Amino acid sequence: MPSPVLDADQLDAVDPLASFRDRFALPAGVRYFDGNSLGAPARGIAERVAGVIGREWREGLIGSWEAGWLELPRRVAARLAPFLGVGAGEVAVADATSVNLFKLLGAALAARPGRRRVLAPRGNFPSDLYVARSAASLHGADLVTVPAGDLAAAVDETTAVVTLSHVDYRSGELFDLAALASAAHGRGALLLADVSHSVGAMPLRLADWSVDLAVGCGYKFLGGGPGAPAFLVVREPLQEQLISPLPGWLGHLEPFAFDEEYRPAAGVDRFLCGTPPILSLAALDAALVAWEGIDLGAVRRWAESLGDFFIALADERLAAAGVVVASPREAARRGAQVSLRHPRSSRLVAALGERGIVCDFRPPDVMRFGLHPLYVRHADVAAAVAACEELLSREGVAR
Amino acid sequence: MPSPVLDADQLDAVDPLASFRDRFALPAGVRYFDGNSLGAPARGIAERVAGVIGREWREGLIGSWEAGWLELPRRVAARLAPFLGVGAGEVAVADATSVNLFKLLGAALAARPGRRRVLAPRGNFPSDLYVARSAASLHGADLVTVPAGDLAAAVDETTAVVTLSHVDYRSGELFDLAALASAAHGRGALLLADVSHSVGAMPLRLADWSVDLAVGCGYKFLGGGPGAPAFLVVREPLQEQLISPLPGWLGHLEPFAFDEEYRPAAGVDRFLCGTPPILSLAALDAALVAWEGIDLGAVRRWAESLGDFFIALADERLAAAGVVVASPREAARRGAQVSLRHPRSSRLVAALGERGIVCDFRPPDVMRFGLHPLYVRHADVAAAVAACEELLSREGVAR
Repeated sequence: MPSPVLDADQLDAVDPLASFRDRFALPAGVRYFDGNSLGAPARGIAERVAGVIGREWREGLIGSWEAGWLELPRRVAARLAPFLGVGAGEVAVADATSVNLFKLLGAALAARPGRRRVLAPRGNFPSDLYVARSAASLHGADLVTVPAGDLAAAVDETTAVVTLSHVDYRSGELFDLAALASAAHGRGALLLADVSHSVGAMPLRLADWSVDLAVGCGYKFLGGGPGAPAFLVVREPLQEQLISPLPGWLGHLEPFAFDEEYRPAAGVDRFLCGTPPILSLAALDAALVAWEGIDLGAVRRWAESLGDFFIALADERLAAAGVVVASPREAARRGAQVSLRHPRSSRLVAALGERGIVCDFRPPDVMRFGLHPLYVRHADVAAAVAACEELLSREGVAR
Repeated sequence: MPSPVLDADQLDAVDPLASFRDRFALPAGVRYFDGNSLGAPARGIAERVAGVIGREWREGLIGSWEAGWLELPRRVAARLAPFLGVGAGEVAVADATSVNLFKLLGAALAARPGRRRVLAPRGNFPSDLYVARSAASLHGADLVTVPAGDLAAAVDETTAVVTLSHVDYRSGELFDLAALASAAHGRGALLLADVSHSVGAMPLRLADWSVDLAVGCGYKFLGGGPGAPAFLVVREPLQEQLISPLPGWLGHLEPFAFDEEYRPAAGVDRFLCGTPPILSLAALDAALVAWEGIDLGAVRRWAESLGDFFIALADERLAAAGVVVASPREAARRGAQVSLRHPRSSRLVAALGERGIVCDFRPPDVMRFGLHPLYVRHADVAAAVAACEELLSREGVAR
């Protein structure tokens, strides 16, 4: 049987991302498998935010709005567009993911008055379901959930929008958005994807896949910082049809006219709402600067390799102790994440954390290992599996 | 005629806020009359945010959520409560003001199904009107606007909510919330105040005034930074009746249960929504720390004195050149702001800015001077009026 450590070293020896790894400042001794939940900070973010506070805010005061802050959401949107595979004019950066999902679902339901169903997979990200249920209810519509595998077949003429997370947060399953868009469009419905768990982990091609609408957060793989501003995508042909149910001053055609009537801004900027949190937004901007020159195709291939290696090792070393691989085995159907199930997952996650191996627990029994390609290597995976094996051999954790 | 400069010096000589002024770091040569729009940064904010990035995010990574970030909205809410005159358990810090207004109007309309009107003053803050119109429409209700002076008399049995900005953003007029609450309650309606333009400028006593609901932003007088998170107030007796139309994971009773059904958190925290922007939130927290020990009564008295002095000087020096005082002359009816009208206001504001006197223009012809008590003195007011006088005597600006 080949040594997995040796395999890891061999796999890590040919690292197309090697020259970018020093852009990310992980603490010594930590193997970080939570980049899918909170990305680690890139170098340069601290300096950027210090400049925003010390120069732009302190020296520039109110004048900094005209000198750059008002344009910052648009600049960040332009940086995000290549991650998403859409035009810069199809992205807006604002608010939290849930707020953006509410805006888009509300706008889509209002634009499709004859269709009173929002369709989502059972087990979809919980807060996406809360928001979908509320938005549907406010429009006299219903949220209907079906097993993920039945989603395409469940679209019918009453469906206004099909919405789902691109990657299942528990299992890491990656859904085929192009196929779902085709199924939705075949019945006249729209597809709204939450790409929070895939953006930055793989090249997204939302335009090529004919995805109509999308939302996502900036703080997972993208590394924009805790609670970084979220984004939304409205494909160009839909922009003039959709009106935000959250009309704020920055989404007005003329924000400084102080007009008592709301007139939506041209294009996707109508989905901006209130004053953006500039410190957090500048951190996200600096985080995206740190991605410059990084090939998302190489990022994806590395994540697939990490996942394949993780699953092979788990089968070899952990299956006998009752650990079950809960993620798809086929790399093409898996996000940059491997999930394992075990009755003592909660305790295992805590014990791994004490050894500097940071992953997380999701009820009822899932250990999630995010595989951020920019700071996880095969050696980290080997170390995590070895630590699990050792912990499972002990009475207290395993039984 | 007394010299206004001498008067200014005399007035500034007895300064109850003198010992606090060095907490705020204004650039040299700037007289800042826009603290009502973007408060200046307090010392300590830069260090705090640097610590959040360099220690909490970089070193603590995902663990910082449990180690403090999840509690930060509640901590900031507790710091804000004394500014508002309500209990800490009646404040939530989240999202932007417009988003919070949407949440509260939506929740109030849903809780008052027999009442289909939202009442607001004509000339209310524009984006508050946009949001009110949208929220009303989603609930089958209407926004009705009347002249501000007619607001109390216009409340009737069809009114669900009366909503207004505590201070008129153009004129600086300060409305009597206690009287409006009484009028609203007399007909069974609720009062929702936007205190963005008064919080930090005077002691608010929302509980004593029987205000039911409030929203406001953190970046004006409070100095929380550009786009600082906003807040909302739900008085305790209403909390269990109201359900947010924006149900996010942080507003769930058990955020980490990943429950597919939304169950609202107890109390005001149900109005939290998505992941808070921690960098911006930490800046707001540090800004509020800088207010410790500052008596809001003294702040209010200083602002009144600044405003009275400003108006007396404007009458004496600027009236002949066509400048009209657009703010109430009675201090008790005026926020910490003086507005002047002149046909060339836009050009005057620009010319003042070139001399380091920072104020702003609001259409059609208003110059706004925010009087932030912690960094405006009577000498600044005298300098602003003298500069206006000099500029108005020139051909290019005055005619």
